Amino acid sequence: MERMKIAALFADQEQLDGKEVTVCGWARTIRDMKTFGFIELNDGSCFKNLQVVMSADELNNYKEIAGQNVGAALIVRGAVVLTPEAKQPLEVKASSIEVEGKSTPDYPLQKKRHSVEFLRTIQHLRPRTNLFSATFRVRSVAAYAIHEFFQSRGFVYVHTPIITGSDCEGAGEMFQVTTLDLNDVPRTEDGQVDYSKDFFGKKTSLTVSGQLNAENFAMAFGDVYTFGPTFRAENSNTQRHAAEFWMIEPEMAFTDLAGDMDVAEAMIKHIIRRVLERCPDEINFFNSFVDKGLKERLTHVMTSDFGRVSYTEAVEILKQHNDQFDFKVDWGTDLQTEHERFLTEQVFKRPVFVTDYPAEIKAFYMRMNDDGKTVAAADCLVPGIGEIIGGSQREERLEVLEERIRQLGMNPEDYWWYCDLRRYGSCKHAGFGLGFERMVMYLTGVSNIRDVELHPRTVGNAEF
Amino acid sequence: MERMKIAALFADQEQLDGKEVTVCGWARTIRDMKTFGFIELNDGSCFKNLQVVMSADELNNYKEIAGQNVGAALIVRGAVVLTPEAKQPLEVKASSIEVEGKSTPDYPLQKKRHSVEFLRTIQHLRPRTNLFSATFRVRSVAAYAIHEFFQSRGFVYVHTPIITGSDCEGAGEMFQVTTLDLNDVPRTEDGQVDYSKDFFGKKTSLTVSGQLNAENFAMAFGDVYTFGPTFRAENSNTQRHAAEFWMIEPEMAFTDLAGDMDVAEAMIKHIIRRVLERCPDEINFFNSFVDKGLKERLTHVMTSDFGRVSYTEAVEILKQHNDQFDFKVDWGTDLQTEHERFLTEQVFKRPVFVTDYPAEIKAFYMRMNDDGKTVAAADCLVPGIGEIIGGSQREERLEVLEERIRQLGMNPEDYWWYCDLRRYGSCKHAGFGLGFERMVMYLTGVSNIRDVELHPRTVGNAEF
Repeated sequence: MERMKIAALFADQEQLDGKEVTVCGWARTIRDMKTFGFIELNDGSCFKNLQVVMSADELNNYKEIAGQNVGAALIVRGAVVLTPEAKQPLEVKASSIEVEGKSTPDYPLQKKRHSVEFLRTIQHLRPRTNLFSATFRVRSVAAYAIHEFFQSRGFVYVHTPIITGSDCEGAGEMFQVTTLDLNDVPRTEDGQVDYSKDFFGKKTSLTVSGQLNAENFAMAFGDVYTFGPTFRAENSNTQRHAAEFWMIEPEMAFTDLAGDMDVAEAMIKHIIRRVLERCPDEINFFNSFVDKGLKERLTHVMTSDFGRVSYTEAVEILKQHNDQFDFKVDWGTDLQTEHERFLTEQVFKRPVFVTDYPAEIKAFYMRMNDDGKTVAAADCLVPGIGEIIGGSQREERLEVLEERIRQLGMNPEDYWWYCDLRRYGSCKHAGFGLGFERMVMYLTGVSNIRDVELHPRTVGNAEF
Repeated sequence: MERMKIAALFADQEQLDGKEVTVCGWARTIRDMKTFGFIELNDGSCFKNLQVVMSADELNNYKEIAGQNVGAALIVRGAVVLTPEAKQPLEVKASSIEVEGKSTPDYPLQKKRHSVEFLRTIQHLRPRTNLFSATFRVRSVAAYAIHEFFQSRGFVYVHTPIITGSDCEGAGEMFQVTTLDLNDVPRTEDGQVDYSKDFFGKKTSLTVSGQLNAENFAMAFGDVYTFGPTFRAENSNTQRHAAEFWMIEPEMAFTDLAGDMDVAEAMIKHIIRRVLERCPDEINFFNSFVDKGLKERLTHVMTSDFGRVSYTEAVEILKQHNDQFDFKVDWGTDLQTEHERFLTEQVFKRPVFVTDYPAEIKAFYMRMNDDGKTVAAADCLVPGIGEIIGGSQREERLEVLEERIRQLGMNPEDYWWYCDLRRYGSCKHAGFGLGFERMVMYLTGVSNIRDVELHPRTVGNAEF
């Protein structure tokens, strides 16, 4: 008999009443009531477990099955019985159960609450818990929603390089990539590392952002987006930083900062909508056990018109509340999470874009405004977290860009191809970056980035 | 007036006849006929150019526009005119044209044929050519088709780690990832590299495959897939090898080798179908200018039932033709591309899975068959290229797996978490790997991997 997934069982329950089915999965609980028993079976196709009822009369190997350990892999055959009066809408009355793979009493995921810290030591097994089952399912649905969003709008998906030869991206500390033997590093005559002997013939690193490369593509395809891993070798041991994380970076030609914000807002709403639609059980779980305000917050964000306020106006507002902040705000200072959250939670009570930051605290490629002091940047702040997206209109004027590069002590020639885009058919364009793990944390209420990645990489941790 | 993309113009042409529109894009050609002129405008939203007609009578700045250089970014306003009798179905009669960004006479992409070798030196501009516009659009559509395929079947998308601490994946030479200062490598007391000082506190590398990690996930979610970058530090300078490339690796619980092949076959057909549907202009272009047999070959693959033959049978067939091969075939030898292509092109005349290879030439994790000599592997061979997919049923029996690991001189303890999957609720499972660039090459007829990646990384090359 062909195997049926539990998700399909729940979806087609009306047609299945009384029908024989075969279901494969792992036992989450096994209760032996001597002449009958219950198994909660999960096959990973959905968040919910299937209740399997077995009776000693009908099941030849009742004793063997009842004696199995939690975590065993089972193949269950039996009839679907609708149970509209019970907690679960249906159960399967087993006529035969086969043990595909045993488990043992030392199986680490016994039926009890485990700390997330303990679960991080068994990252290969933690996807079998409710918390991680729900988290990684939301992660997958959110990732697909992002592709859906951009593809349906005609954006071209681009894989920007992971290994980069330019150490001038400037967005953070980089990991070096090498095939040199560290026990015997080759040297040039003047004693320096001889990178001509390295794989690429030069020093290379892991990318911190695909943006500059994405601009190459936007100047041909108009609208493009990246979705790939990026890296930061920063020695920061916080809940929100990992050395390896995924980023989405759209880049749009003939688009200004207002258009950039429109797309960012629509994208966030689309992701939330899809997750609420496709993961109702998961969101209910998070709302009950992880973050009581989650569902309300997500629904609120999905239905709000995002506010827009300039940095200068925002600073004026925040300065009036400086007594409440650890870091006092004044024009020219970067906004801290406490300020961002105050703005979005207390002042606007909805997501808000803060625009036009001082040039000094933003990257060289952001477009200089006519005031000569601020750049056309827009950070999106959301309740409960602060900044979730950073974007900007890019400097499309060759002379202004080269001047900015020089001001920062860099050499425009190192950016020859980036400057070429401004030499041949330059146009106004804009883009933004969304840290995918931050988005998943926001969608689930999970507060530590180590718990939204399969095998997180942080200082001192590269297990599995 | 709101900007309209050229793709939308072609799609909605009936409703747009006579309407005023605004179009933004880059001039591919500009022809000045003194009192009137033509511009081929491309905005990247589709493969096709838009023909813009300008007349000196109606256009104040006719001379300026006619004097622009190819590659300039223009904003065109004008009326749509349907031209059913002409080569192109419509044109826009310009009432105003604004120069958003000039180009210069030294713009490298003048209207002429450029060699792919030359275009590799201007990777930031080559997406503006027909060849690369078509290639990267197919790449994006194929990537999305893969997500569609797996998501519609309930597979969970998983991001397996890029940085890995295990140098025992065994699939190829690895790049080292480090934050140690190569000018001053720290040493332990016995003179070895002191990796406790490295970022992760141990030696780390770039992953060559996400498979082992994906199995962790499959044992919880049932059906999962990866789609991410992988790396090989192999010093091979061929048309088919790059140091950085993307892989798709599905992994399915409660699935045997036959089920694995079913999914692989359905996936390939789905990708081809979507690309033929969504990229007709691009495929016609490739079929005319890159590979005359492309469309026929793709259609044939999409509509064929893939053959299945065991390695042992395949060797029997091939041995009869050993006089035609550079490498003679005998049981136990690995199949070369010449043999693979002979099988799929001459013998089967359609795609074919070769199954059950000798254990010696396959990886340790593949399931040992009852004969004790062969493993449950399946490589998919396609006409025109040879192997495109490598898959296998995985060894789910703990003792057999540990024995295989020991036989290869490795230590099962280094694979403790991988073995754990066989300790707790093990089940038959299978998966495969598709090299994404190989698939894009197959879909386009482009023969060099350097021309299907935005910025390819190969020995000695990490520019851009």
